[in-house]
Amino acid sequence: MVIWIPWVAVGVSVISILTAATYARLVLHADAGTEPMRDTSKSIQDGAHAFIAREYTAVGVFVAAMVVLITIVLRHQHGWMIAICYVVGAISSLLAGFLGLMIATRANTRTAQAATKSTASALQVAFRSGAFMGFIVAGFGLLGLTVLYLVFKAWVGVQEAPNIILGFALGASSVALFARVGGGIFTKSADIGADMVGIVEEGIPEDDPRNPAAIADNVGDNVGNVAGMGADLYESYIAAIIAPVTIAAAGAIFRRLGEKAMVLPLAITALGIICSIIGALLVRPKGDVPRWELTWPPYVTALLAAVGSFFLVWGILGKEHLGLFWPVLMGIVAGMAIGLVNEYYTNDSFKPVREIARSAKTGGGTAILSGISFGMLATVIPVGITALAIGVSYVMGSHALGSGGGIYGVGIAALGMLCTTGIVVAVDAFGPVADNAYGIAQMTELDPEVLASIDKLDSIGNTTTSLGKGFAIGSAVLGALALFAAYAQAIGLAPVNMFGDYKFIVGILLGAVTPFVFAALVLAAVGRGAFAVVEEARRQFREIEGLREGAPGAKPDSIRCIDIANRSALHNMFLPCTIAIIAPMLVGFFLGKEALAGFLAGAIAVGFLLAVMMAISGGAWSNAKKLIERGEHGGKGTAAHAASIIGDTLGDPFKDTAGPAMNILIKVMAVVSLVFVPLFMK
Amino acid sequence: MVIWIPWVAVGVSVISILTAATYARLVLHADAGTEPMRDTSKSIQDGAHAFIAREYTAVGVFVAAMVVLITIVLRHQHGWMIAICYVVGAISSLLAGFLGLMIATRANTRTAQAATKSTASALQVAFRSGAFMGFIVAGFGLLGLTVLYLVFKAWVGVQEAPNIILGFALGASSVALFARVGGGIFTKSADIGADMVGIVEEGIPEDDPRNPAAIADNVGDNVGNVAGMGADLYESYIAAIIAPVTIAAAGAIFRRLGEKAMVLPLAITALGIICSIIGALLVRPKGDVPRWELTWPPYVTALLAAVGSFFLVWGILGKEHLGLFWPVLMGIVAGMAIGLVNEYYTNDSFKPVREIARSAKTGGGTAILSGISFGMLATVIPVGITALAIGVSYVMGSHALGSGGGIYGVGIAALGMLCTTGIVVAVDAFGPVADNAYGIAQMTELDPEVLASIDKLDSIGNTTTSLGKGFAIGSAVLGALALFAAYAQAIGLAPVNMFGDYKFIVGILLGAVTPFVFAALVLAAVGRGAFAVVEEARRQFREIEGLREGAPGAKPDSIRCIDIANRSALHNMFLPCTIAIIAPMLVGFFLGKEALAGFLAGAIAVGFLLAVMMAISGGAWSNAKKLIERGEHGGKGTAAHAASIIGDTLGDPFKDTAGPAMNILIKVMAVVSLVFVPLFMK
Repeated sequence: MVIWIPWVAVGVSVISILTAATYARLVLHADAGTEPMRDTSKSIQDGAHAFIAREYTAVGVFVAAMVVLITIVLRHQHGWMIAICYVVGAISSLLAGFLGLMIATRANTRTAQAATKSTASALQVAFRSGAFMGFIVAGFGLLGLTVLYLVFKAWVGVQEAPNIILGFALGASSVALFARVGGGIFTKSADIGADMVGIVEEGIPEDDPRNPAAIADNVGDNVGNVAGMGADLYESYIAAIIAPVTIAAAGAIFRRLGEKAMVLPLAITALGIICSIIGALLVRPKGDVPRWELTWPPYVTALLAAVGSFFLVWGILGKEHLGLFWPVLMGIVAGMAIGLVNEYYTNDSFKPVREIARSAKTGGGTAILSGISFGMLATVIPVGITALAIGVSYVMGSHALGSGGGIYGVGIAALGMLCTTGIVVAVDAFGPVADNAYGIAQMTELDPEVLASIDKLDSIGNTTTSLGKGFAIGSAVLGALALFAAYAQAIGLAPVNMFGDYKFIVGILLGAVTPFVFAALVLAAVGRGAFAVVEEARRQFREIEGLREGAPGAKPDSIRCIDIANRSALHNMFLPCTIAIIAPMLVGFFLGKEALAGFLAGAIAVGFLLAVMMAISGGAWSNAKKLIERGEHGGKGTAAHAASIIGDTLGDPFKDTAGPAMNILIKVMAVVSLVFVPLFMK
Repeated sequence: MVIWIPWVAVGVSVISILTAATYARLVLHADAGTEPMRDTSKSIQDGAHAFIAREYTAVGVFVAAMVVLITIVLRHQHGWMIAICYVVGAISSLLAGFLGLMIATRANTRTAQAATKSTASALQVAFRSGAFMGFIVAGFGLLGLTVLYLVFKAWVGVQEAPNIILGFALGASSVALFARVGGGIFTKSADIGADMVGIVEEGIPEDDPRNPAAIADNVGDNVGNVAGMGADLYESYIAAIIAPVTIAAAGAIFRRLGEKAMVLPLAITALGIICSIIGALLVRPKGDVPRWELTWPPYVTALLAAVGSFFLVWGILGKEHLGLFWPVLMGIVAGMAIGLVNEYYTNDSFKPVREIARSAKTGGGTAILSGISFGMLATVIPVGITALAIGVSYVMGSHALGSGGGIYGVGIAALGMLCTTGIVVAVDAFGPVADNAYGIAQMTELDPEVLASIDKLDSIGNTTTSLGKGFAIGSAVLGALALFAAYAQAIGLAPVNMFGDYKFIVGILLGAVTPFVFAALVLAAVGRGAFAVVEEARRQFREIEGLREGAPGAKPDSIRCIDIANRSALHNMFLPCTIAIIAPMLVGFFLGKEALAGFLAGAIAVGFLLAVMMAISGGAWSNAKKLIERGEHGGKGTAAHAASIIGDTLGDPFKDTAGPAMNILIKVMAVVSLVFVPLFMK
């Protein structure tokens, strides 16, 4: 049976891609609306393409440099084969991002048009666009990995193959890093810039057609939240599959179980895709769609995957290793729990957001103080759950498989969480499309009724975003830990002296500081980018006659704003991204493999904390602002509202730029360490 | 010779205490000013005493509980002896804090009065008050430790003695924790409350006699920045001495060097006191005192200590172990370097503060964003320097002393930094006294000329505060690392499997999250405290007739404001402080000694990062505000000024509450681990 599993996985991944294609066709066949709507959508498309074209060129240069580096540095470890996998990983990620963006930027106007009929049909269009992205990500990931697995198994042998196809994960990581960081800087520079000039200075609503930065803001939603988020989860997904395969290929487990433990991850992933498709089919919005319309399908998918994996473990490994089912379950539960914590801290029905809104009454300073302290406090449950998941997975893995099984169990936990990626990306990529639809409806001045209908989607999107954010963080941490475990195994499970050697503790310190520096650079980049957009938008209001009054002929020059955000993003993404990729190499090379182990441990811990804190503080400020805008504590125009806008200004780059970038940072550093481990073994 | 060193140390510590007494006499003999000045000073004294009385009662209960716990839990390890040392440590810390506060709250009015003569004589009074605190801290610390060393050496033997006198460090830690956290919450609740109602709402200047919270604010400077800071450095000082003594008592070093390596730390500390006295004697302000008047004496002291320790190492250990001089030097250099980084990032002559002020022009959100990103970025050099100091100290220590020497070297580096504590506390405790003097001068409406003269002291105080903050952080980290090294040695230098066991990585995660939770609780406490003070101050302005207009009979009820800040501080300090002390015990007990090693590593790394980030962001916001108030970007009353006040509101609890609390948190957790290590060895 074992021999057939990779082929089944190939089949399932093709089904996933076909499912995606079907969703894409359904989106494209929908009515694209009136001419002004199509024009606006076209502007957003053009802006997104302009960004993508530049970003991909920059990434292309980086990828080429990495190919040379890998080929030369790892020349005694099949470097050129790893380089091939690297290129495949990079290209597939770029392609997935590009396709997702293509559909999302076409779904926006179609969602707005569908909203003229009913909320349910608008939801359907936006969801289909998200589902396209979800199944492309899942399909590409599993297909790429499995094909490379089959190829290199035949070429270099089954135990050596995982070390080669790690290049695939590294390729996806590099692209994800640039996509998240570049997209994140772009989107928040445009967003803050648009808000500051539009809402604060000129007193016009969000997405007003007069605002020169409004189109840039909508472009940002797509490049940041669709392409960036997709690349992020694509990368987690691949890391989660490859980590247990690598662990299973080396050492004691292979001797006992052979290839079985290597194909189990492929089987669980394929199962996850099938369950995700079932979950997606459950989305059949009707009438007045409730807020949790898109919340429950992921839970159903997770439940199906949990039950299914029980039988998979039984069938593939046999009844005596059935304990390995527990790590799968722990991974699934941990992912959901982190999402729920996120929901509690950022939903305005609960205490944190309400208290932040209340503290806005005494000014911006206290609102920020309150949000930061909630964000910091919120880290404790996700960390506790993750620690528990690691502990249980390790113990059950050791129990089920004997020595080496503990690490394998941790890898499987990550996979358990990530096997439902298809449906999670689908519901998460829904949000930005709904957001864009609202923007288009506003800019083309559709009926208030239609706006209200799309606004409804927004509140659904908020909930799915909480889920998605929690999932992205949890999966990144478990994925990074699984890669870290594989690294620990690769350096021979060498016992590390806590202080028998100073290098380990130095490694921890250096690892811990890296996320701080990375976040600092990214936040500063958003500050600079937003400043540039503000200056430009102010200039246009000053120089373009009749723009402020909305005279018929007076059009803002949206393209210049896009161009400025674009340039700022590309210019500022290089330093942090290069640090992320080079730092582990330098630590490993100069301080040795123990120091690098400490480095990864420190970086994962701190990256995790910052990711949670920034996501939650940011989300909470944003919703506190919305709460006040709905009339709480005096509503719009009050001092409390001004204070909440200050919170939101800090929160935007927290939750959409620096915070999510942490996810990639920790994974990319772990995968770099694992790929280049032969260098540090001398 | 070795046998005499402890007696020499006793002699030097007595000299230190006598020096302190002389400074105190000089302060008390100075002219206390007019009656209104003495009255105001009296109100501040009464407020401080009220706080101290309540705080010490609360701490007393805690100390009693700990005595019971230690005696019972460590009954097979001379628990009752440890408990005695614990009580001595706690009482000496409480006494040092109390005495420092007594003198500081009397020096304030005398400084203001001296300012009516000249800036130089005002500086002299304020400095003498600081010097009293500095030499009390140094004298008490060395005296207590050395006497206990002599007693328990005679009683339980020289190798066993350090394990007993660790109780002294734990006692000092517990008190420091409460003093820093309680004092920090009090001072910032009062400060923010006073600013918010006074400056923002009523538009009256800082320290206006009409402000009901003005006295509370001045009390806060004393309890937070004098008593809290003193207790913090007292604790670091003791930790830095005890850690290398403990390391030297166990294992290979004792076999080779005997008691020599145990008394070397005492000798270096005594040397540091002598050099600090010389440094203090160099402070002879004349005429128009320059800004760096108090900056250079600590550097001279450090230089003398470095040179002196070269000969001490030579004399005590012999020429073949002279390499151990390097760790001393590295410690001194690291302390100064971190202070300089702090100065760069928080002084308005340099880019960071100027850029934060500039970004205040686009609002509070961008000002906060800019300050946070500078604070995060600023962590990289201190971490790098510390990593370098650890590396060099370890390598040189191993080289000079052979196996076990590396850890000893790290301990000696911490001591190298801390041996100059006397002079550092002296210049650091100067700041709050000058601050208070300004408050009194303002409240009793002295001449603008006098105010300008005291304001000059403020700018001197700013520089010494940067130095002191950097020193407090650096010494806390090196002190905690030295204790951690001693812990690592105590658990037998057991090689820790990175992922051979899941417990280590779980320990790192749990350790890393602790500073976040701790900081969150402390920040939230300040928010709540400030809110309560604001409500009370508003009530008084509303209900006390003529208060706003400054009618002759209308006096604010300052005592109520003090009482409210007081209660809020005591109420909210318990949870974070208990977590700090209990968490390592729980981790050690339930997850084992390896997990606790990971826990400490994670906590020290993250605590270090947060301490630097919060100190620097907070200091930078504060100085950006002052820069704008001096006229930059439009000056007072502009939108930029309002934005900078928002930065300052967040910065206050960052730099004076949560940030400094990190210093104690990491030390207290390390010392708890070390004291209770026998529990986890099963």
